[in-house]
Amino acid sequence: MDLKAHIRDVPDFPKEGIVFKDVTTLLASPEASQFVWDTWEKQFRGNGITAVVGIESRGFIFGAPLADRLKIPFVPVRKPGKLPAKTIRREYALEYGTDCVEIHADALKAGDRVVVIDDLLATGGTAAATGELVKELGAEVMEMAFVIELSFLKARATKLSSYRVSSLVQYDSE
Amino acid sequence: MDLKAHIRDVPDFPKEGIVFKDVTTLLASPEASQFVWDTWEKQFRGNGITAVVGIESRGFIFGAPLADRLKIPFVPVRKPGKLPAKTIRREYALEYGTDCVEIHADALKAGDRVVVIDDLLATGGTAAATGELVKELGAEVMEMAFVIELSFLKARATKLSSYRVSSLVQYDSE
Repeated sequence: MDLKAHIRDVPDFPKEGIVFKDVTTLLASPEASQFVWDTWEKQFRGNGITAVVGIESRGFIFGAPLADRLKIPFVPVRKPGKLPAKTIRREYALEYGTDCVEIHADALKAGDRVVVIDDLLATGGTAAATGELVKELGAEVMEMAFVIELSFLKARATKLSSYRVSSLVQYDSE
Repeated sequence: MDLKAHIRDVPDFPKEGIVFKDVTTLLASPEASQFVWDTWEKQFRGNGITAVVGIESRGFIFGAPLADRLKIPFVPVRKPGKLPAKTIRREYALEYGTDCVEIHADALKAGDRVVVIDDLLATGGTAAATGELVKELGAEVMEMAFVIELSFLKARATKLSSYRVSSLVQYDSE
């Protein structure tokens, strides 16, 4: 399956000079999206994974079907102020300024073994903050799995060096 | 399945006096979430549905597994500025002010028959705007399906009167 053929390049989004990797075209192709979920299902079934953690909001689209297939809980990690009950939060640095993610304080428990899902791995800031949240709740990150990896940003060697990381499509240059 | 037992009431969220219906507890229960997806799968399989339209962002969590099970495209409807390619948009009135949703202009085509999915039906403003977007692209809304319906807000009789609407759980009072 040539997944790259189903990912649309959108120039100058969200700002000039950035080429955005649009996965809505992949989601428009049942063959391509089934390939993603089939691959992950094979990868994670029987591994003792107890929950799928999806990062807002394209991580919801890709993560929820995996939780459905494995018949395990789906846990959303969201931007601040979106989760209604008691949360813990983690700030992380952006190129300019900071951002923040939250998880419900009761969403995971000690002994949980989770896979973290998002559509795209760039610098790894959000994923690393998500990993910290998972660990703060006493759970273990078994793997972080992405559809797309901007491998030229080297997140595996830097922010995610302590995690097992996988991706289905890699881009080696901008 | 007593779905209500899996929905958490969070008082005073997002503001004082509102009791928020939290579905993260439902997503934490594979039995409850499988019941939702099993019910919808039975309801829509064989109906000639060609796409699932999910409304940002809890509609992504509930809609994507249905698209996966039916092996049809998943189409996101999002807040302004989130979809990268050419979009059409629809404003709608809130209690104070307006809000807006967008869909990619090439996300659906004439002849598509869609089901619109969201976690919760309140006044129906977002769902009605989503229905307009679907029709503007030449597609047909076969049904709008929600996990939760705040039936005391009477969206079926008002904003969604021209649509077929279903929900799995109804609340008849606040």
